[in-house]
Amino acid sequence: MVQRVAVIGAGPSGLTSIKACLDEGLNPTCFDSSHDIGGLWRFKEKPDPVQANIYQSVVINSSKEMMSFSDFPPPAELPNNMHHSEVLLYLRLYAKAFNLLQHIHFQTTVLSVRQTPDFAVTGQWEVETEREGQRETHVFDAVMVCTGHFTQPHLPLSDFTGIESFEGRYFHSWEYRNADGMEGKRVVVIGIGNSGGDIAVDISRVAEKVYLSTRSGAWVVSRVGQRGFPADLFGTSRMHLMINKVFSSWINRMLEKNLNEAFDHKLYGLKPKHGLFAQIPVVNDDLPARIISGRVQVKPNVKEFCGSSVVFTDGSVINNVDVVVFATGYNYSFPFLPSALQAKSGYRLLLYKHVFPPALTQPTLAVVGFIHGFGAVNPLAEMQARWATRVFKGLSTLPSEERIIKEIQKDTKTMHQSFACSERNPLQVDYIPYLDSLAEQVGARPNILWLLMKDPRLALQVWLGPCTSYQYRLTGPGQWVGARQAILTQWERVIQPFRTREVPEPETRPSSRLSIMVTFSGVILLYCCYNKFCI
Amino acid sequence: MVQRVAVIGAGPSGLTSIKACLDEGLNPTCFDSSHDIGGLWRFKEKPDPVQANIYQSVVINSSKEMMSFSDFPPPAELPNNMHHSEVLLYLRLYAKAFNLLQHIHFQTTVLSVRQTPDFAVTGQWEVETEREGQRETHVFDAVMVCTGHFTQPHLPLSDFTGIESFEGRYFHSWEYRNADGMEGKRVVVIGIGNSGGDIAVDISRVAEKVYLSTRSGAWVVSRVGQRGFPADLFGTSRMHLMINKVFSSWINRMLEKNLNEAFDHKLYGLKPKHGLFAQIPVVNDDLPARIISGRVQVKPNVKEFCGSSVVFTDGSVINNVDVVVFATGYNYSFPFLPSALQAKSGYRLLLYKHVFPPALTQPTLAVVGFIHGFGAVNPLAEMQARWATRVFKGLSTLPSEERIIKEIQKDTKTMHQSFACSERNPLQVDYIPYLDSLAEQVGARPNILWLLMKDPRLALQVWLGPCTSYQYRLTGPGQWVGARQAILTQWERVIQPFRTREVPEPETRPSSRLSIMVTFSGVILLYCCYNKFCI
Repeated sequence: MVQRVAVIGAGPSGLTSIKACLDEGLNPTCFDSSHDIGGLWRFKEKPDPVQANIYQSVVINSSKEMMSFSDFPPPAELPNNMHHSEVLLYLRLYAKAFNLLQHIHFQTTVLSVRQTPDFAVTGQWEVETEREGQRETHVFDAVMVCTGHFTQPHLPLSDFTGIESFEGRYFHSWEYRNADGMEGKRVVVIGIGNSGGDIAVDISRVAEKVYLSTRSGAWVVSRVGQRGFPADLFGTSRMHLMINKVFSSWINRMLEKNLNEAFDHKLYGLKPKHGLFAQIPVVNDDLPARIISGRVQVKPNVKEFCGSSVVFTDGSVINNVDVVVFATGYNYSFPFLPSALQAKSGYRLLLYKHVFPPALTQPTLAVVGFIHGFGAVNPLAEMQARWATRVFKGLSTLPSEERIIKEIQKDTKTMHQSFACSERNPLQVDYIPYLDSLAEQVGARPNILWLLMKDPRLALQVWLGPCTSYQYRLTGPGQWVGARQAILTQWERVIQPFRTREVPEPETRPSSRLSIMVTFSGVILLYCCYNKFCI
Repeated sequence: MVQRVAVIGAGPSGLTSIKACLDEGLNPTCFDSSHDIGGLWRFKEKPDPVQANIYQSVVINSSKEMMSFSDFPPPAELPNNMHHSEVLLYLRLYAKAFNLLQHIHFQTTVLSVRQTPDFAVTGQWEVETEREGQRETHVFDAVMVCTGHFTQPHLPLSDFTGIESFEGRYFHSWEYRNADGMEGKRVVVIGIGNSGGDIAVDISRVAEKVYLSTRSGAWVVSRVGQRGFPADLFGTSRMHLMINKVFSSWINRMLEKNLNEAFDHKLYGLKPKHGLFAQIPVVNDDLPARIISGRVQVKPNVKEFCGSSVVFTDGSVINNVDVVVFATGYNYSFPFLPSALQAKSGYRLLLYKHVFPPALTQPTLAVVGFIHGFGAVNPLAEMQARWATRVFKGLSTLPSEERIIKEIQKDTKTMHQSFACSERNPLQVDYIPYLDSLAEQVGARPNILWLLMKDPRLALQVWLGPCTSYQYRLTGPGQWVGARQAILTQWERVIQPFRTREVPEPETRPSSRLSIMVTFSGVILLYCCYNKFCI
């Protein structure tokens, strides 16, 4: 019977995995190669080569209610889209609230994870670690791999003819900290993922000019949504999920139209071939204004380098380039895992529901937080961890290997059909359906109809409001008594950080509906003329 | 008869004044205390105390077509909202194209401008200058004062109780260059004019936290307008002017509603008491995203300082403040002018149409570019200069002193009724009507009806398109043969700088209008429920 669980990595996925173990009465031991928690979210001035890292200006894409763990709403006063330092603060509060730190061994690198000789019977693992040159081997009943995506920079130099002749400086975005040293420089940023967009904008504030090169373009969305509320609180309800399912093509077009109303992606040279829902969009609040002011210029893919010149595929050339930043994403790798467990299915790892390798005779190894969805990774990782620990304990069982393989193949096919997948942009799951499918396994999926009868107010929020993770603590194993209140007060926590300057109620202004109606037609008519003739 | 004209200042107003003189066959001599043209628009690492200055990140609020001089369209490839370095480039191109530089005496400070003893007969002026310690007195037939608004920082320390006890650093926004030295600091920025907003955003990228204190709030608009076109190209046509006149209250409400759709000014603590058209709005593309991410926190007015703490009028206190930036605007002063010419009318100078002091027996002194309107200052200053030079030559005559005084008083009254004026936020004129009124004097006001018969295509652009300054070169004195073409190609110049990455035409997607119509009602219904119950 599983008791001792090794958790590898003390980032968000590792922390929530420790907690899931504790909740299930397991005994977790977490190893992290650094000296502190936070993983990606702990900014490091000089990170070790295999550690994930971020740049100084990083603000989280998901709003705080959407990135929250399910039984730990963020403090109301924290901003909606937190700076990385505040995300780390939230993780520290989480770790403290649930006494997670005592289970973590810092500065301990996991060298290898191997099945014990009697694995078929025990399901146990030998985990070899190194701390200050001291190697140790521990035996665990189960292993949770929580090392994330962002440790191995992908630097495809061989794809760029003439890079060896480039006279300036070049580096991968992983190395980027801030714009120091970029003052007055001419900079080319290659790749328009979230990092590429952020870094281009960042550098453009001090550089002479930044050229943002993209092969395929991107949909760019802002964190600031309708009326200034966090954008990810809209369109992320269960109701929207249903509407999307029925009218997906129409919704897609409508949302693309809205995005183009804000700024025409074609005019701005950003329009991708893929539809909005086919890839995770780039979240960037500043890019349109940097483009209209010419501080960032969008360019096509780089064809070749020649001395200090960069030649693009449209034949245009930028001379005297000082710096090139390769925002070309990350490879994933789990060097400590047996290669048999790293088989692939299309662009993804061969993992059942992105968690369990199918080839094991005992399901005692789970990968947590290694997933891309239209939403924050914290709730996804947390649900994976909750499910995995219950599988470890035998409270939830996996299908046969054959069935698992079939399901993975089916999932991979669906994924490749639904999304514009690539090696480094592997949107994999629909957020709510995936969470629901794991919650179903755990026994924590909310039953809306039952809720509607029992607690209509709550049911409406669960159905119509943003699908925050608290919904998965309303019922079943892991039920949390505070979940209902957390859901009913989620908008208050959204509004709270804005309350820094009271604005008095405006005086009521007289309005004449009739005159408005009468004038409306005329104005519309004139406006149409204007648009027809002047643009 | 006027021949020799002194032009004081070689910023945009000075340059266009030199050109206006040349166009009228006058002989201009321009004095500038610095070593180069550009005035405000030339970034200076260490400016002299009486020189206007800007910070490194400044991007012009007006788009290039709206800030263009009337016979010198900006190069098509320049971005729509130029960085200050590009504005300076544009001014250099202008100066070069019309051979203006040869008329400028650099590093020459004007110490005094006095009427000659026989002024009543000759209208001449004694202009005393200093260059490298050498004083000289020149006699000129006329003087154009082009020294601008932004040379005398207004630092109202006496309004801030306890400022003498403040333990951190404080300075006026005039001193601000960039965010260097603000890393990790806690900063309070006082004042939400364009500088205050920009500086708060700038510093927030490196500071621990920025608090933006505002007494009265502000409407905040973006440079990026509908579909990503420059915002100031919309709503700035003659047609809109007419609509605004008839339905001003409704248009005002509609535009405020649109701004609140982008982000609710009340939610964001920014909503001012005044309506959108009552003050020049703050142009800031980044502020909403900096607020939602908590990097900038909006605060009310400062009540007092106490050691390193700042107390606000709502009783809230921010401790450990390192830096305070007073973005509290500028006083205006013309130290070289006789005080009799600096009389005031309300918050403005007592100047006929913001140009001519009424008390002179000869109208040979004009103030150019000292004006605030809903639009770029270049076209305003240029039209003022064109009018002034024609007045100097006697080709346009001013009314009697009595009539002038009455008109100024009437204008001042209208200004105070229409706008939320203050000493340092003196919105003074409606852009198009003011330009038209001067153009009428010059004889260059476009006649739309006549145009409609003669050149309907052009007339539609003049009537429905943005009111660019080329319109004032279509006819009359100063007519420019390229004006028609400049107007007809203005949208091409807007689009050109975006053409940096070709986006292929999308494949046509099938659509079913019927199914859309059928589903529309259902979706709207569900959406209404969502908004009603979830927010």
